[in-house]
Parts: sequence; structure tokens; C-alpha cells
Amino acid sequence: MDIAILGYGVVGSGVAEVIEKNGRSIADRAGEQIRVKKILDIREFPDSPDREKITKNPEEIFGDPDIKIVVETIGGTGVAKEYTERAFRAGKHVVTSNKELVAVHGPELLKLASDSGVSYLFEASVGGGIPIIRPLSQCLAANVINEITGILNGTTNYILTKMSRENWSFDDALKNAQQNGYAEADPTADIEGHDTCRKIAILSSIAFNEYVDCNRIYTEGISKITLKDMLYADAMDSVIKLIAVSRREGDRVFARVSPAVVSKEHPLANVEDVFNAIVVSGDAIGDAMFYGRGAGKLPTASAVVADVIDIVKHNEYTKSVWERRDTDNLVPFGESLTKIFVRVAVKNKAEAVADIERVFGTVEYINADIKGTEDELAFTTMKATESNHSERIDELKAMRSVKEVVNVIRVLQ
Amino acid sequence: MDIAILGYGVVGSGVAEVIEKNGRSIADRAGEQIRVKKILDIREFPDSPDREKITKNPEEIFGDPDIKIVVETIGGTGVAKEYTERAFRAGKHVVTSNKELVAVHGPELLKLASDSGVSYLFEASVGGGIPIIRPLSQCLAANVINEITGILNGTTNYILTKMSRENWSFDDALKNAQQNGYAEADPTADIEGHDTCRKIAILSSIAFNEYVDCNRIYTEGISKITLKDMLYADAMDSVIKLIAVSRREGDRVFARVSPAVVSKEHPLANVEDVFNAIVVSGDAIGDAMFYGRGAGKLPTASAVVADVIDIVKHNEYTKSVWERRDTDNLVPFGESLTKIFVRVAVKNKAEAVADIERVFGTVEYINADIKGTEDELAFTTMKATESNHSERIDELKAMRSVKEVVNVIRVLQ
Repeated sequence: MDIAILGYGVVGSGVAEVIEKNGRSIADRAGEQIRVKKILDIREFPDSPDREKITKNPEEIFGDPDIKIVVETIGGTGVAKEYTERAFRAGKHVVTSNKELVAVHGPELLKLASDSGVSYLFEASVGGGIPIIRPLSQCLAANVINEITGILNGTTNYILTKMSRENWSFDDALKNAQQNGYAEADPTADIEGHDTCRKIAILSSIAFNEYVDCNRIYTEGISKITLKDMLYADAMDSVIKLIAVSRREGDRVFARVSPAVVSKEHPLANVEDVFNAIVVSGDAIGDAMFYGRGAGKLPTASAVVADVIDIVKHNEYTKSVWERRDTDNLVPFGESLTKIFVRVAVKNKAEAVADIERVFGTVEYINADIKGTEDELAFTTMKATESNHSERIDELKAMRSVKEVVNVIRVLQ
Repeated sequence: MDIAILGYGVVGSGVAEVIEKNGRSIADRAGEQIRVKKILDIREFPDSPDREKITKNPEEIFGDPDIKIVVETIGGTGVAKEYTERAFRAGKHVVTSNKELVAVHGPELLKLASDSGVSYLFEASVGGGIPIIRPLSQCLAANVINEITGILNGTTNYILTKMSRENWSFDDALKNAQQNGYAEADPTADIEGHDTCRKIAILSSIAFNEYVDCNRIYTEGISKITLKDMLYADAMDSVIKLIAVSRREGDRVFARVSPAVVSKEHPLANVEDVFNAIVVSGDAIGDAMFYGRGAGKLPTASAVVADVIDIVKHNEYTKSVWERRDTDNLVPFGESLTKIFVRVAVKNKAEAVADIERVFGTVEYINADIKGTEDELAFTTMKATESNHSERIDELKAMRSVKEVVNVIRVLQ
């Protein structure tokens, strides 16, 4: 079976490497030998072991009837989309690690694949090497999935772990992540939660059997999290993690990406460094957790190759359709319920306590002896809607007893 | 699509329940409605919602061409084996939760299924509702699997958790497990590790692509673990778990089931109560962990139904063969390496220390202030072969300074 790889970057070259290295056991499992026939890239790779397969001419791939499967590891929604559609129209299956393309254009691309009688598989788009897409769509198929909660981004989890374990500032932790190759030069997509948002959108679309648009999911990154927040969390016997959560509420879906205070008793609290983990709650299975390296060349490449093996082995196409609903299927963010953790710098503590309790009702104060927070009151609230909380925070800001609302972080329940 | 269930016990009735309850979403995923047409059981169930489907006559199932899939939830290797073979010969796929049958007769049954052009699927045989068989055989197919380590039995994990958390004796914890329905009246298969052994044999056969015979795997249960051992483990910042381990060593397989001292840093140390977890190490993916409820009616039933959906959706058979090697493919147990933890009751401590170090070389003593162990020395050894350790323990027993070797427990590394 001949395949082609589009884009010879980290993941693309990893796919070639895994197929070369584990060729024999892959052939055992797939039922036939898998061979990389062509690799498309506009760059030159004179020293690469794959240099003779590399071409700049896409027609050598799309026009070659021997190539039945195309691996798209270009990334983004530009040329990657164009080539994916071209592959489908040429009757070729496509396997990808491109979460942005799947999250943004999944419904159209899955439909085109289905109309063309080919598969569009993307196990590698979420959780790197952790098997999650197939378990969710196949192994848990007998369950009604109620909720998915996860740590889906290795970069931010590494930064938060370093802040919490080593008492580093956010900036120092980010710099360290960049030096270690865990964060990109422009870390925005990771830090601001966009990467996590695309992943929870993909998982939600599979779990709830209809398209969940990543552009409509409330997304907040970790750049406002400080070391002092971490110390407060510790005083609450908790940690702060970037958490994606998604659940069915009636006939709508609630989804959110944000930093959250997570109790150390929660299984996600122990997920450290670049590891990812996804907790899936089904009506029959209860909670199941999937844990492993969420990124990296070989883990991600091995997930891509697993999809390729699946196509070769079954020699059929996997039909999967994400219906787009006419109206928004997400719970309006303002209506969603949460507890929040609030830090307020105050002018007068006694007055501020009275003000806080007038505004928020019952709260729980956090006593933490943290240097530089002597003028602060910190507390967690009862559950209320996001709109309510946001109005109350505005009220608080206007109080004479209050200097500043230092930070507001959601509490995971 | 019509199916039949053989055996209307806990799992069998759970399968009927899950199909009834989640019928609509199951039909969405399978591509057609799945209907339980017949249930075989020799007992009467006058009050069951499924009573009209229940028959005592197997011919109503095996002779019915409409029934394409048979769910075997009888258990054991007697009539379950006979009916499984009969189903294959009648051209019916079989889905099972029967770990004993798969572990003992897997190679023959898979071959018969393959020769008959039907599937034999058994996701529910390991890890209850945790997806592990399909991730191992499909999602991680691009990896060479090096090692599998797991907590595979909920009953023993519940007992060990209660001993460690509540300071209960083994007997009290077992009694409590029985009262809560987590242990059977005859708990031997769980307590003595046989259930765990069958599961690791199945996982090993899949991971290493050749049959690993459960009867050849060294298996030791938890009945000799005492509360004092737990307290010593705690002093080592560890816990004691019933651990199954299996790994490739050259062209052979090393597999073992035994209690082990597990550092609290290890991800398996935090797996409590009836939960199971499996850590899989692959050459590309690194470590991945799968965690969830390892038993129970609905989790197990949902795994069975997932296999049924898979067959309906793909409408083809999954070929899988476990080759039986002519010669034993397991590393002889005596040659395998391990560290051990040893408790010795001594007559004279100074003399015993000298004796211990003469026999074992470098050891690490455990200082734990545990009531009733005042006459004991406890230590962990360096790595050595099982044969070496066993000779040394015999030497120790013969020493004049030694009253008794109280316990020996392996240390997981």
C-alpha cells in the first residue's frame, strides 16, 4: 500500500520515521506493507533519509492512482484544506493531525469525504499519542456521553507545573518551555487556549454527534495566572490547570476553556508537565480517564500511522458526519453555572468583608499567608451564572472599600 | 440487526439493558437498529422485562439465520466454549466478556472464527468498561509495545485500598468487599490473582502478537499481605498493589502477577477502590495510561455492546490470530530480575544485620515504628534474579540469628 505525506515538518517526518522503523510490525497489523511513496514539501532536505521521495509537485501525488492514502501534516486552514479536498476528489483517504482544519471545517470535509467514499481520520489531532478519538467514537459507542473534562495542551500544562512546583513566574516558565522546545516562538495559540479550544470542539462533536463550533466556545488562556494565584490554590489544597470542559445540557452543549482551580483529589490535578489527560463520563461506564503525552513528534506520528493502518486493514471507508445545526447549539455562556475564586485588594478589610457578603452572599474566605497579598481578601463563591458573577464583580470594583479586583478564576467541580 | 445473548446473568442482562436504554444513539453509531431477539438461559425469569425473549433451546438461536451476532456471557470454559464454536460454525460473530475462555482457548477459537469468516471480539474481557483491547490492537498499532503494567482486578484493589486507608485487616477488608458485592462468596479467583493472570495473558497476546499462556505465568495473590506490610510500605512512601506486568525481553516475554511495593510517585499508586488502570509503554508513544471501572454490570455490558456495534458498523470480520509457539515463549521465572522487600523476625539484631548483609550484600533498611514489629528487621535488596533471591531467603531462614522470614514482597520498578 502506497501512501504520501503532505508537509515534511515535525509530525510529517515522524510519520516517515515510524513507518520505516516499525515497518515489520506495522505490516503484521495492517495485513500488508505500507510504503511512503512521495512527500510533498516546498523546502529542500538534502540530508534527509527521505530526500528522494520529496517532491514540490502535488500532481505527482494526486495524479498517482497507486497512492491510496494521503497524510496531511501541513497544518492551518489554507493549503491544507485545498489539498485535503483535492485528495478526497481524487478518491484518496486522508489522515491528519491538523486540529485547526478539523475543528473549523470538519462538517464540510467529512461530508466531502463521505460523498467521495473515502475516510477522513484525525486521531492525532487531539491528545497526540493518547488514543482518544477512536475510544470515544467506537469503544464508548454504547454509552451516552454526558461530559468530557480534560487537560489538552502540553505547553500550558508544562508552564503551570513549573510555576506550581518550582515557584517560577509565568514569564520564566514560558521562557523555559520555549528553551526546551515545549513552546513555540509565538506561543499565543497555546497560551491563550485556542489549541485547547479546537481540541475540545473536536471531542464534543464526536461525543455529542453534532458539530460544536470552536469559534463559539468561551476561551480564556493562562497568561493572567500568577504565582500568587498558585499559592492561593495550594492553600485550598488545589492546583490551577487549563481545563477544557464540555457537557450535554438538555438538547444543547455547554463548553468552556479556562484556567480552573482543581482540587488535588481530582484525577486531573496529578497530570503534570507536558502530559495530557481526558476524563470521559458515560452513562454506563461511569468515568474513564486517558492519559499520556499529548504532543511530540513520535507520539503524534504514531497516532497518524494508527489511522493509516486502520484504513489499510479494513479496506473500506469510515463514514462519519457532523451535522451543523441551523441555530447555535451551545448554552449561552452567561447562563452557565460555576463557582469562582476571587482575589480583591481592599482599602479597609472590615468594610470590604461587609461589601463582599452583600454582593455575593455566602462566600468562603481563603486564609493563605502569601507575601505581597497583605491587603487582599480572597474567597470562593457559591455556584451562580457567569452573568451574575460578572455583574457582581463589576459591583465590587465600584465599591469604596475596594482598591482592585486582582484576579477571578473558575473553580472546577 | 438481530443478536442473541447466551447467559442472562449480571453482564448478559446488562447487555440487554444497555441496548434497550441507549437504543437510539446505538443505532446512530452502528448505522442500523440492534435488537436482542433471543436470550438463552436454563433459569426462569418470570419478572424480567426480557422474559419473552428467554429460551432454553439453543437451536432457536443457532438455527436462526437472522441472528448474526451472539453475545456469550456464560463464563467458564465448558458450555461457553461449546456454544462459541457452534456459533462460529453457524457463521455467527461472537462477542464475549469471558476472560477465562479467551485466555485459555484464545488461539483455537480465534482460528476457528477466522476460518469461519466471522469475528471473535472480547473488549469486555479486560478492564470492564475501560477501552483497552481496541486501543492496544488498533490505536497503538504503529508502536512496538515494550511493556504493560496494570491493576486489573477491582476486588483485590478494593481490599488493599481498605487495608491501607482504613487500617483494616485483610479478613475484615475481604468481608466488607463481599458485603458490598465487590467480592464473590468464593473469592479465590480474585484473591489468588487468577483473574488478573488471565487478563494480563490476553493483553500480552495482543501486544506481543503471539499467544501467552496464562497457565505459565507466575501468579501470586494478596492473601499473605498484612496490615503491617502496608505500614512498612507507607514508611517507604509507597503502597502495596496487586500488579500484573508483562514485557518483551529479546524474543521472549516476561510476565508476572504478584503483590508489589509501588512508590507513591508511580501513576498506579493512586488507583484506588474498584478502579483498574493499565499503563502501556510503546516505542513511539512513551507511556499511556487507561483508567476506569474495571468491573460492574453496566461498564462491562457497555464494552460488550461496543464490540457488537463495531461488527454491525463494519459489516466485515476482524481477523486476529494468536500463534502458539512450539516451545515456551516465556522467560523462565527464576531468571527474571527484581528487587524485593523482606521482613525478618530476629533473635539478635546485630548478628542478624551481619548475616543479612553477608547473604544479600547491599540492602536498604526500612525504619518504621510499627507496633508488634519490635523484633524485626525490614529491608529492600538490590536487583537480582528470582532464583538468587529465593536461595538467599532459604539461607536466611537457616541462620541462628533469625527467628523467621515474615514476608517477602517484590518492589515494582
